[in-house]
Amino acid sequence: MDTSKEGCWAASFDSSKISFLPEAVITPRKEAEIGEVLTLANRHKVPVTVRGRGTTLMGSAAPVAGGWVIDMLKLDSIKIDAEAGMAHVQAGAKNGDVQRAAEAKGWFYPPDPSSKEYCTIGGNIACNAGGMHGGKYGVTRDFVICLRGYLPTGEAVQWGTATKKFSAGFNLRDLWIGSEGMLGVVTGAVLKLVPQPAARWTLLTAFKTETQAVNAARALFRLRVQPAICEFLDRESVHCAESATKRPVFAGQKDRAVILLELAGTASEVKEQSKVLLAWAKQHALAYRAARTRAEAEQLWEVRRKCSGAMFELGDAKLNEDIVIPMSSYAKFIAFLMKLKKATKLAIPTFGHLADGNLHVNIMYHREDPAESKTAEETVALVMRTVVAMGGAISGEHGIGLAKTPFLRIQHNPAQVSAMQAVKKALDPNGILNPGKMFTLFEVWKQPRMDIHLPWDHK
Amino acid sequence: MDTSKEGCWAASFDSSKISFLPEAVITPRKEAEIGEVLTLANRHKVPVTVRGRGTTLMGSAAPVAGGWVIDMLKLDSIKIDAEAGMAHVQAGAKNGDVQRAAEAKGWFYPPDPSSKEYCTIGGNIACNAGGMHGGKYGVTRDFVICLRGYLPTGEAVQWGTATKKFSAGFNLRDLWIGSEGMLGVVTGAVLKLVPQPAARWTLLTAFKTETQAVNAARALFRLRVQPAICEFLDRESVHCAESATKRPVFAGQKDRAVILLELAGTASEVKEQSKVLLAWAKQHALAYRAARTRAEAEQLWEVRRKCSGAMFELGDAKLNEDIVIPMSSYAKFIAFLMKLKKATKLAIPTFGHLADGNLHVNIMYHREDPAESKTAEETVALVMRTVVAMGGAISGEHGIGLAKTPFLRIQHNPAQVSAMQAVKKALDPNGILNPGKMFTLFEVWKQPRMDIHLPWDHK
Repeated sequence: MDTSKEGCWAASFDSSKISFLPEAVITPRKEAEIGEVLTLANRHKVPVTVRGRGTTLMGSAAPVAGGWVIDMLKLDSIKIDAEAGMAHVQAGAKNGDVQRAAEAKGWFYPPDPSSKEYCTIGGNIACNAGGMHGGKYGVTRDFVICLRGYLPTGEAVQWGTATKKFSAGFNLRDLWIGSEGMLGVVTGAVLKLVPQPAARWTLLTAFKTETQAVNAARALFRLRVQPAICEFLDRESVHCAESATKRPVFAGQKDRAVILLELAGTASEVKEQSKVLLAWAKQHALAYRAARTRAEAEQLWEVRRKCSGAMFELGDAKLNEDIVIPMSSYAKFIAFLMKLKKATKLAIPTFGHLADGNLHVNIMYHREDPAESKTAEETVALVMRTVVAMGGAISGEHGIGLAKTPFLRIQHNPAQVSAMQAVKKALDPNGILNPGKMFTLFEVWKQPRMDIHLPWDHK
Repeated sequence: MDTSKEGCWAASFDSSKISFLPEAVITPRKEAEIGEVLTLANRHKVPVTVRGRGTTLMGSAAPVAGGWVIDMLKLDSIKIDAEAGMAHVQAGAKNGDVQRAAEAKGWFYPPDPSSKEYCTIGGNIACNAGGMHGGKYGVTRDFVICLRGYLPTGEAVQWGTATKKFSAGFNLRDLWIGSEGMLGVVTGAVLKLVPQPAARWTLLTAFKTETQAVNAARALFRLRVQPAICEFLDRESVHCAESATKRPVFAGQKDRAVILLELAGTASEVKEQSKVLLAWAKQHALAYRAARTRAEAEQLWEVRRKCSGAMFELGDAKLNEDIVIPMSSYAKFIAFLMKLKKATKLAIPTFGHLADGNLHVNIMYHREDPAESKTAEETVALVMRTVVAMGGAISGEHGIGLAKTPFLRIQHNPAQVSAMQAVKKALDPNGILNPGKMFTLFEVWKQPRMDIHLPWDHK
């Protein structure tokens, strides 16, 4: 147990960069220690916040009510069952390490948040993390076979078995997934793997407008082609990437929206589908370029990787929203977004995963400018209302935490919120697990943010 | 509202064939009517049991506490979103109809319980139904994108949106899946579809012993081949099929365990993998036969389809258990099963899905023979204890209902059961939804069963 000033400070914040000091940090070496800590915490009604690497942007891992922080980073074992295609991992295992361990045995773990070299599986489970492979392969929830951990009372539980079928009793496994550490503490998981794709093929396509880009993507999906990745960048995002890489995405093409596609599968499958994709690109895109080698593919990917960090040339503050839009509303949402950019005069570079409609809308502003800050704050609320009105979701992969609490009730009606709160009360009667999150209004934009650079920050 | 004797009798039982008369049957034409019925039921504390077609063998749809039955069969709309690859369905839609509607648009809905021509999507969701495609594609839970319905209070709720990503608030969608109608009433769902496989290829393989068969299957999985279907039949099941079809499975081969494999995918993918499968069969199987045409494939499939009904030549009563075994324990479980057959002198024909370990263990006995009945009853308990000791599940796709209540606590420790009961209490404080199921001990073998033939009964 660490009660030092430095130790508590380091555990006082996540990527939302708002600090709340806990009174102690516990770093268990054995899962059973977590049961012991929870037994005590529950007896004395001490708030407990569990953290992995703290890469969440939502404030979900910030100990807003103080109390104790459980740091999971030492519980990081990974074991691949190469026959069954399953990974047996502890909650503190890093997503990237799970991916590599699986790959070494011919298997593939698709969920890949952009922080994958830092974030933990426990954190991924807490927010039902997604990533670029969501459209074809699914999100964290789709890969969790079994969970073990502790109830807030300190009692050990296991939800499911290491088998692909399980239909015995209420599904608390999935209730825990996405519950942001508020219903129980995950210590270990069995994850489903899929066969490692033997081949990949990358294609970058450019379009005159965002509307043309999303309409082209819809035309592609109508062909029943499921690219493993289908990343869209609007012109503002492309501009950011270009200024970061100091290279135009397409020589001779300026100010274009782009879609970056990747096929994955058996060699013959990829070959078949690449022909379909090339014909599609020829028909719909202004320009396109396929990668002939892995190195060329990496170069195409640079566009996507660099755009996010470069956005800070457009403002020193970013409201990064991970909304989801049903496919049928893509064009309508783009029209709304373009009008919004004009009306607010804010830069709102937007990119995301077209195969699942999960768009990252980045509202950029200058924190010290009160008018801009107010506009940004109003804009995010308008985006959320619009998204829900279009049948979409206010979060696709980040969760609610603190940052999205003002919007929870836009997504959910009072009966839905009451049902969730009843479940919380039932499983955590003393309210010790991650209090202050999800249901209690918290306005991040009113909080002072620390000016620090975290290892996984872009640039 | 139907309070007639005939109407109430027809809604008084499911495939467990134990009858409990309700006082009324309501067949809503509009989803909103369900909210109204629940509001009244909750006010007057009337038990409510929701039923689809009643194909469950577990008694999950039997109104054990009387009250009102809501019959969902009129709410059966199906709409395919061919672009997004989603099916928008009402709970009363038939599984087989959803499959056909998807197929007509080039999509595929994989969950396929053997009762698919009768059972409803609502029922599939209630028990998290599986089927033969589970190993490669997953089960019902893996295909539910969004649910709508009513809380027991009559309030309308929607869990999730028609998008492949959603991470906003507690995941009550998945908590409802597999909750056997005890936490809420599902009226509609959005289901995920996958591209319709362009090609299928079927291979029947025979093995000298069950152990050789399961070990061969494990060798196949180590090659990273994921057959769409991998059905195992032990010698007793094969014997049943042979006596039903009056034809040996393989000319010149008698008394063999078999594995029936089906590949599905793009034409080139299936071609590639069929070579791997043939080489595998050559190395491991005693005999094998590939289907060259769809008609030949159908003939191979006959073995699997006929075995279940033919089991009644071995006894007039069947305890059909859908246990799940982790792959690493296959051989150990087979050894246990063979010993059990000898020790009990009961016929226990066993078949199932080797890609996910979901085996149907059919304990056959004669109801009028008290010694045999007692042995059967003790045998099922021993099977359950053994399965759980091997890290497996007491149910892979049927659920608990009434029939598996004696075994719930073998699977789940007291903390797990208490947590489930707390969730039930939180969401259904008056306990009106499907009371008497899951947690209350009920011994089916002590109940009189009706001697009726249902349309989906085998033979």
